[in-house]
Formats: sequence, C-alpha cells, structure tokens
Amino acid sequence: MEGEATRVMVAVNESTIKGYPHASISSKGAFEWTLNKIVRSNTCGFKLLFLHVQVPDEDGFEDMDSIFASPDDFKGMKNRDKIRGLHLLEYFVNRCHEIGVPCEAWIKKGDPKEVICHEVKRVQPDLLVVGCRGLGPFQRVFVGTVSEFCVKHAECPVVTIKRSAAETPQDPIDD
Amino acid sequence: MEGEATRVMVAVNESTIKGYPHASISSKGAFEWTLNKIVRSNTCGFKLLFLHVQVPDEDGFEDMDSIFASPDDFKGMKNRDKIRGLHLLEYFVNRCHEIGVPCEAWIKKGDPKEVICHEVKRVQPDLLVVGCRGLGPFQRVFVGTVSEFCVKHAECPVVTIKRSAAETPQDPIDD
Repeated sequence: MEGEATRVMVAVNESTIKGYPHASISSKGAFEWTLNKIVRSNTCGFKLLFLHVQVPDEDGFEDMDSIFASPDDFKGMKNRDKIRGLHLLEYFVNRCHEIGVPCEAWIKKGDPKEVICHEVKRVQPDLLVVGCRGLGPFQRVFVGTVSEFCVKHAECPVVTIKRSAAETPQDPIDD
Repeated sequence: MEGEATRVMVAVNESTIKGYPHASISSKGAFEWTLNKIVRSNTCGFKLLFLHVQVPDEDGFEDMDSIFASPDDFKGMKNRDKIRGLHLLEYFVNRCHEIGVPCEAWIKKGDPKEVICHEVKRVQPDLLVVGCRGLGPFQRVFVGTVSEFCVKHAECPVVTIKRSAAETPQDPIDD
C-alpha cells in the first residue's frame, strides 16, 4: 500500500489570446505534462492542487468603459472576476474528474509570483509545477517571469514546463 | 495501458564527508524524493537514469602522494577512478533493483554542470532531478552551484531537491 498522496500544486492562468475562459498555453502544458509524465496511471497516488492568481490591476483594466453609479456596480464587477476565475478552474477540475485524479482548486488575488510562493508556504505541496513561456533573455527584461521567481523563492521543489516550439504563438509574449 | 515509461535522469555524486563510496547527502535526497514522491508504487511507469560525472582534477588530487613510474601506474589510477564511480552507481542500481524500478547508470568525465546538460541533450529525459545543498547567497558566490546552471540550461524540465535542515552537515559546503 502507498502512503499519503503526492500533492502537486499547479499554477494556472488565463490565456492572453484565446479569449475567455481559456487557460493559457503554458498552464495547459504544465497540467498535461503533470498528468502524462508524473501521475500517469497512478491516479490515486496523486492529488492536484490548482491555484489561480488573479491580478487585480489587469482585471480592473477591462472595466475602463464601464460606468459605476452605485456600490452594486462594483459588486457586479467583483462577481464577474470571480466567475471568470471559476470558469478557468472548472476546466482543470473537470479534466481531473474525467480521469479520476483527486484535486482541489482555489483563487487568490494579488501578484502571482508572491501569492504562489505564499500559498506554497501555507499548503506545503510536494511539488510545484509552473508553466513558462520560455522567453529569451531579451524578452525577459520586459516581462517579469513568474516561473523564475518561484524556482528561487518557493519553499518546495519546483519544476517549470516550457511550451513546445509548435505551441508558441507568433508573439512569444502571448500565452 | 500506459505508454512509454517516464524517463527521469538523476545526477549523482560522491559524498565529501562520508567517505568512499558513499553518495552525497543531496544526491541520496534527490533519489529518495524521486522514489517516494514521483515513482511511488508505479514502478513500471518510470525508468531512472543515473548519471555520475567525475571531475578529473578533483580525482587526480588524491594522487598527489602517488608515485608514477610507468605508463601502467596511470592506467591503475584511471581504473581506480572508474571503480569508485562504479561503486557509487552500484548503490543506486541496487536500490532500484530491490524495489523493481527499471534503471540505467553511467559515468562521464568533465565539468558536472556542462556534462549533465550535454547528456540531457543526448538522452532527452522527461525530467532531470538534481540534489542541491541549499546554500545561501553568500556561500553561492564561492561554490558554483550545478543545480542553478542545470535549471537555466538543461533542455528538459528540471527539479532541484534541497537537503532538509536535519540532513545539512555543520559546514553546509559539505555534502
């Protein structure tokens, strides 16, 4: 018999190009890699923990054209954010359910790299899997890479999964 | 049925303190983590690939007191190096054999970080597991960390396994 399941945290986010509520190419890649290469047929040996961190600024940006006339309008906005996050997580939870892998999923707000490391500290997974865009050194100067930060600061083993060349969009900043 | 086994390369080296032919604390830790957290009971789903890189200078150092009088003396030295490496690998291969995990092991000479990345390119594992001493920023200035180099340059997903506090020797440079 096996002991406690190996708890694998997978950080997931929305796609910048595929439209709501699609998961980013890199987070889908990280998830599929975890299933195919780590979990394999041993579905009871693992538990996947999906963390989606919503960036408050980014989400608020889409409400630039909205008109806020009452406190309820803000509540509506917050609910919409929540629903987007839930739909994203639904994809991953459904996939796990189909193949019989136990999982949990939750949403946090904040700076993804900080929140991921904070959640690792709190939840203490055995492994953190983070997708990454595999940007070159030049591009990295302009976009903070969450994965590099997690490799350095997360208090658990971390593996970053690069997108394959075939999956990389024309603009590699997109995901 | 499952497809091809997940091929996990584990970089292993000798202990600096425990004496011949013991594996370093960090490479044992990386190996045990791989077995307990990844392979688990799914022994047929994985194949472990043990790579031991011997550093020519370091090994030669111990022969400072030797006397070389004929070409055969050098051959003897080279054979001794080889035997040390084989005894190290024997430990890992025996453990895998006991629990029924398929494995392969081999030795290369050179700069560990360069050789590991080169072997990753050649062998194309699904995952590279590297133990690390978990040194602080100050100590890292003086000792090149193989794991950091591999995270940056190896052409496959890499996970580094830090030693637990309980396993860290008095001088953290030791391993």
